[in-house]
Amino acid sequence: MDFSSKLLEQAVYEMSQLPGIGKRTALRLVLHLLRQNENQTLQLAEALTNLRTGIKFCKNCHNISDTELCEICANPNREASIVCVVEDVRDVMAIENTSQYRGHYHVLGGKISPLDGVGPQDLTIQSLKEKVKSGGVEEVIFALSSTMEGDTTNFYIYRQLEEFGIKTSTIARGIAVGDELEYADEVTLGRSILHRIPFENSLKN
Amino acid sequence: MDFSSKLLEQAVYEMSQLPGIGKRTALRLVLHLLRQNENQTLQLAEALTNLRTGIKFCKNCHNISDTELCEICANPNREASIVCVVEDVRDVMAIENTSQYRGHYHVLGGKISPLDGVGPQDLTIQSLKEKVKSGGVEEVIFALSSTMEGDTTNFYIYRQLEEFGIKTSTIARGIAVGDELEYADEVTLGRSILHRIPFENSLKN
Repeated sequence: MDFSSKLLEQAVYEMSQLPGIGKRTALRLVLHLLRQNENQTLQLAEALTNLRTGIKFCKNCHNISDTELCEICANPNREASIVCVVEDVRDVMAIENTSQYRGHYHVLGGKISPLDGVGPQDLTIQSLKEKVKSGGVEEVIFALSSTMEGDTTNFYIYRQLEEFGIKTSTIARGIAVGDELEYADEVTLGRSILHRIPFENSLKN
Repeated sequence: MDFSSKLLEQAVYEMSQLPGIGKRTALRLVLHLLRQNENQTLQLAEALTNLRTGIKFCKNCHNISDTELCEICANPNREASIVCVVEDVRDVMAIENTSQYRGHYHVLGGKISPLDGVGPQDLTIQSLKEKVKSGGVEEVIFALSSTMEGDTTNFYIYRQLEEFGIKTSTIARGIAVGDELEYADEVTLGRSILHRIPFENSLKN
């Protein structure tokens, strides 16, 4: 593309560095900003700068936080003895939205993925190991997405924590509530039969 | 969504103000920036700020430009007597890419669209009228998109320029090069027959 302005070209280039945003979409977004009030652009720029320079991670669970200890870890009503291992802040938000979990989290910051150059040392696994080693943790729940990378990461952490003899569990895989059996994939349906639960338990919720 | 950080929430909110970007996509983009080098975010913020505060519009054609007179208007090899009326800088870029046009442009900054609250006074129509009035313009080419708003805008400008007795034309509508007739819509095909051109003319390019 042949831009009539270096400023425009630079803004479009930087915008198109975002995932899923090509040059054309970037140009559309930037032209939208130009038609809006100047404040909108300045606020966007400021919010991004503030976030990137001021962001903190909870020293206990590594979740994004404005304070040294995140709200969940600082809350005395949450059970510190249960730790749910998740990939990133989106998973924390998703689980919090269910209002079904009262324990702590441990945010890995990714999944082991050799293809993307992400190894165990790039994640917060060592910190989880130390947390368990120092005592007080009774159960670790694996809640990573059910992909090759997720399963690999689960297994790696499982092996790392084996020596401490704590309880480990993984979230249930099965047919989604409201889904029709006939459209479920075989692996999921198969697992949902293998890991069936007593009927009375299903009445509790 | 319940964010663990005000900084994160603010950045996601500002990002989701962009057209076509919802809260979820905004969160994905912002988390992507957090995983990248800090420079990437700062450069994006700076490019947007520079663009919004430093942008100029060519005083002659109203195209985005870093200088008072854009490169096209400042180029003595371009014919100032032909003015192509377009909606925004994207159309200028598209036409420039064809290398088929050697005249000047006039960027309207939008189309007349009562539903969106855009009237003639919001566009650069008055400036076009003055340009024509002051002489030197022989032909005005309408190159707005072929929609209700585009046609309305074309007609409005046409009526405004009528008194000056200059030549007005509109870009040809027809079957795209490489397209099959059987898949063309009836209006386009109908127009392409009504506005047929001498066969020898089609050989020139």
